[in-house]
Amino acid sequence: MTSFVVIGHCAHTDGSFSLNDLPGSGGRMDLLCRSVQASLFLSHGIREDASCLLVMAGGPGPDKTVWFDGNHVRSLSPDERSSASFIKKALDIPAGNLYREVSPGVMVRKGGIEQILAEHRCGILDEKGNDIRNTSAGEFPDVFILSDHLNFTPDEEKQLQDLPRYSLGPQVLHADHAIVLLWNEIDRRRA
Amino acid sequence: MTSFVVIGHCAHTDGSFSLNDLPGSGGRMDLLCRSVQASLFLSHGIREDASCLLVMAGGPGPDKTVWFDGNHVRSLSPDERSSASFIKKALDIPAGNLYREVSPGVMVRKGGIEQILAEHRCGILDEKGNDIRNTSAGEFPDVFILSDHLNFTPDEEKQLQDLPRYSLGPQVLHADHAIVLLWNEIDRRRA
Repeated sequence: MTSFVVIGHCAHTDGSFSLNDLPGSGGRMDLLCRSVQASLFLSHGIREDASCLLVMAGGPGPDKTVWFDGNHVRSLSPDERSSASFIKKALDIPAGNLYREVSPGVMVRKGGIEQILAEHRCGILDEKGNDIRNTSAGEFPDVFILSDHLNFTPDEEKQLQDLPRYSLGPQVLHADHAIVLLWNEIDRRRA
Repeated sequence: MTSFVVIGHCAHTDGSFSLNDLPGSGGRMDLLCRSVQASLFLSHGIREDASCLLVMAGGPGPDKTVWFDGNHVRSLSPDERSSASFIKKALDIPAGNLYREVSPGVMVRKGGIEQILAEHRCGILDEKGNDIRNTSAGEFPDVFILSDHLNFTPDEEKQLQDLPRYSLGPQVLHADHAIVLLWNEIDRRRA
């Protein structure tokens, strides 16, 4: 199982955003939706060994995490609006400290990266990190933590400071593009 | 200048599709929109040396090509709906055999890959092609031709049969994911 966590620093914690304005009303929800798509979709199928965890950290409430599990998710399409509909539904129901199923393969709970870091062997992306191409399969973390269009906050950087860091190339990319590159590395090592 | 051509076999040639249903009413227009995003966007900017050409081949009229030019495009955002709005506008105006500007950096004309093949040094993706990682920068074509969720048609295959073929790894990917991987190869060679 490989998981991708994307921290949405502006992403709303409630479902009041409009499906017709994901970037504005959702707090760059479009980028989070494309990250779900990059994490889970092959050309003609879903990656069953993949998860995408979206940390909604843009208020107004405390952080929430929405978890898409490729092994169980149903009726998800690759377009942004499809993921956004599931996210909206997840953020509309009351969330507790444990994951609650919203629909098959989609869960929500309160909390953000602090909980994720306590539960998984994580790594992050950093332009100054080790080139992922020189990293052996065994060194790969189970969970890659990425940020949306904003850098990690100083508080997040502190929590993430001891994690292994990987770079993907000379350009700074959108989170969903980074996930595509990470999958290609994993796919090539498995082949 | 690097260009990515995506053939939308079901993509409508008029602008009557709904921005609220890009996959269904647009003929997998969502995939074409993400291909524009993958072709042109860096995390905090537009690739000015990039183009994305979308071939609308799903009728009801004859094929049209919509060209997004990274060097001139303005007010384009990375979300699907943003590209879709430009495409809709492009398909709503009368198109001739020469490109006509719809808005800065967005053009439309009649015709599809036959014209593109006559104008550019093209290559295509093929699982049995040369691994892109073993290809030197000088061998790269100027234009990569990709297909949407459907394979190239027999007629297209005939037109494309003499082009160099490149593979990206062991999995069959969405066109937008393939573009991300191609850019990474180009970026690494330029660095």
